[in-house]
Amino acid sequence: MQSYEQSLQQTRDFLLEHDDYLVVSHVQPDGDAVSSTLAVGWLLSCLGKKYCMLNEGPIPKRMEYLWHADQILNMTLAGPDREFKHVICVDCADFQRVGLTHRYFAADALIANIDHHPTNNGYGAVNLIKPDAAATAEILFDLLQLFALEWNTDIATAIYTGLLTDTGGFRYTNTSPKVMAAVSELLKLGVNGPELAETLLEEMTLAQVKVLNRALSTLQLSPEGDVAWVHVTPEDMIACGASNEDLEGIVNYPRNIQGVEVGILFKVIHPGAVKVSLRSAGKVDVAALAQTFGGGGHTRAAGAKIEAALEEVIPQVLEEVRRYL
Amino acid sequence: MQSYEQSLQQTRDFLLEHDDYLVVSHVQPDGDAVSSTLAVGWLLSCLGKKYCMLNEGPIPKRMEYLWHADQILNMTLAGPDREFKHVICVDCADFQRVGLTHRYFAADALIANIDHHPTNNGYGAVNLIKPDAAATAEILFDLLQLFALEWNTDIATAIYTGLLTDTGGFRYTNTSPKVMAAVSELLKLGVNGPELAETLLEEMTLAQVKVLNRALSTLQLSPEGDVAWVHVTPEDMIACGASNEDLEGIVNYPRNIQGVEVGILFKVIHPGAVKVSLRSAGKVDVAALAQTFGGGGHTRAAGAKIEAALEEVIPQVLEEVRRYL
Ligand SMILES: [Mn+2]
Ligand SMILES: [Mn+2]
Repeated sequence: MQSYEQSLQQTRDFLLEHDDYLVVSHVQPDGDAVSSTLAVGWLLSCLGKKYCMLNEGPIPKRMEYLWHADQILNMTLAGPDREFKHVICVDCADFQRVGLTHRYFAADALIANIDHHPTNNGYGAVNLIKPDAAATAEILFDLLQLFALEWNTDIATAIYTGLLTDTGGFRYTNTSPKVMAAVSELLKLGVNGPELAETLLEEMTLAQVKVLNRALSTLQLSPEGDVAWVHVTPEDMIACGASNEDLEGIVNYPRNIQGVEVGILFKVIHPGAVKVSLRSAGKVDVAALAQTFGGGGHTRAAGAKIEAALEEVIPQVLEEVRRYL
Repeated sequence: MQSYEQSLQQTRDFLLEHDDYLVVSHVQPDGDAVSSTLAVGWLLSCLGKKYCMLNEGPIPKRMEYLWHADQILNMTLAGPDREFKHVICVDCADFQRVGLTHRYFAADALIANIDHHPTNNGYGAVNLIKPDAAATAEILFDLLQLFALEWNTDIATAIYTGLLTDTGGFRYTNTSPKVMAAVSELLKLGVNGPELAETLLEEMTLAQVKVLNRALSTLQLSPEGDVAWVHVTPEDMIACGASNEDLEGIVNYPRNIQGVEVGILFKVIHPGAVKVSLRSAGKVDVAALAQTFGGGGHTRAAGAKIEAALEEVIPQVLEEVRRYL
C-alpha cells in the first residue's frame, strides 16, 4: 500500500494534469462535506482550472457564509450543463454517498477519492484516505501545502469549519495535536472562531428541543443534591415527534447541575422495560454501577436496560447509586 | 514599563531565590484559578522548594481530578501552620480577591502577582501581568518554559484546564493562535481533552435548568419555521429562584433550532416592560432590527427594551422580524 505522502502527491498530480473537474460530496452535506468541497474549489480556482461544485441537495443555510457556498450547485434546482471526465469526491466513504450527482460523471470518469472515514473502500482511481484524520478538511489542509498558494481568510475559514464541526467543537477524541496546530495557523489567517462555533455547533432539531423540555419537566434531585434524574416516556417521544437520536445529550442536563455527581435519564422503552443512561461528574464509576444491572460503558458514561416498570426501576437504581456516593 | 519577557525573568528569579512560598488564588476559584495554583505548586515541587497552596474556600468538586488538587488547603477547614514571607498570587486582579488568605501573609511579605486581567493594579513586589493572555494558565505556560523541566500529563492537564475554562471551550474571542498552539503541545503530553470538556464546561445551576425548562415550555415558531421565540415572566424567575445570569444562553435554544433564522427571548421585566433578546443565525442583522426599537448590539446578537405589555410586544417584534426575512 502506498504511503499518505505518496497519495498526497498522486492527488496533486491528478489536480495538475487535467483541465475540467467536478467536485462533489455526500448527500445531506455536513460542515466537513461543504468545506471540503469549497476547499477543493478554491484550490482549483487558484490553479486556473475549470471546475463545477455540486451536491445532490441544498447546502445548510448556516454555511452560506462560506466562500462561494452559493456556487455549489444544488441538483434539485439545476445540475451542471455537462458530464465530467474528472471527478473529486470528498468526505464520501463509498460511491453511494455521492447520491444522484453520479449522473454527471462520464462513463469513463476518473475519480479522486479524498476522505477520512476508516470504512472508505477505495473506490477512486486516486485514493487519498487518512483514517486518523479528524476531518476531510484536515487532509485538504495537508494537500494544499503541496502547492505554493497564498492562503487567505476564505480558505482558512473553510478548513476551520470542517475541523470544528467534525470534532464537535474540538471536544471529540479525534481532536489531535495536529488539528489544534492547524487551527492555530488558521486563526492567524483571520478566521472568526467564536462566530463559527456559535453558528455551527449549536443546532438542534425542533423535536430535540421539545423532548428536552418534556424531560426537564420531570427533573428530580436527591435530598443531598448529588443525584439528579429525568425520564422520557413513549408518549413523550410520539408527542414530540422525537427519535432516539433526539435524546442524545439530555442526560447531560441532570449531570451538569452544580453539585450533582450522577445524572440519570430513564427512558421507558415499553411499560415493562426502561433504558437507564448514567453520567458521572467523575467521583462515581458508572460503568461498575451499570454492570450491577447487566449493562456497561465507561467510567463517566454508561447504561443498562432493566426489565421492569419505571416506578420500580427508579428507586432500584437510586438505591444502587447511593451506595457509590 | 518593563516588557513581558523582563517580568517573566523577574518572576523566575523570585521563584529561585527563596525557599518557602505560599500560593493563593481568588475566592470561589474557577478553573483558571485552581489550575494556576497547581501549576505554580508543580513548578515549586520541581525546584525542590517548600510551599503551601491555599484558598479561602473549597476547590470545586469537578476539579478534584487535577494533580494535587486535594493539597490546596481550604481555610474554612484548616489553614497553614505558619505565616509566609513569599507569596504568589495567581489570577487575582487585585489584592482583595485573595479573600481571607492574606491572614497568612507576613506583614513584610513579598508578593508575586501573576495575572491576565486588564484591570490588574500591580499590587505585587513582582508583577507578571499579560492582559491579552487568555488565562493566567497561558502566562504560566510561558513561565515554565524558562525552567528546564520535564513536562508530564499532570502539569499539562492543569495548564489545559485553565485555557479550556477561561476560553469557554476555545469559543471566546480570547482563543488566540497562541492558545491553540499551546493546546496542541499539551495534547501531545497526553491530556484527555474530551473528558475535561465534558466535566468542566457544561455545569449549570439548578435555577438555570429550571428556568430553561419554563422558557422552553413557551416555545413558539412562525408558520415558516424561521422565527422561534420563548418568554420568561417575573413569576418564572421567582419560582425557579433564578437571577438574570441564569437566563444566559436561553435565547440560543430557539435560535439553534434547524431552519430558524432569528431566535428571541422576551423577558418580562414588569407588566409594562419587556427586554427583548435577539439572536440571528446569520441572515438577519439583528443589530439593525434592535435599533428600530431603540436598542442595539451586534449583527448576530442584539437586544432592546420595549415599554409595553408582553401581548403587544410579541406581535410588534415578530412583524418587524418578518420584514427582514
Ligand atoms: Mn468528515
Ligand atoms: Mn483567569
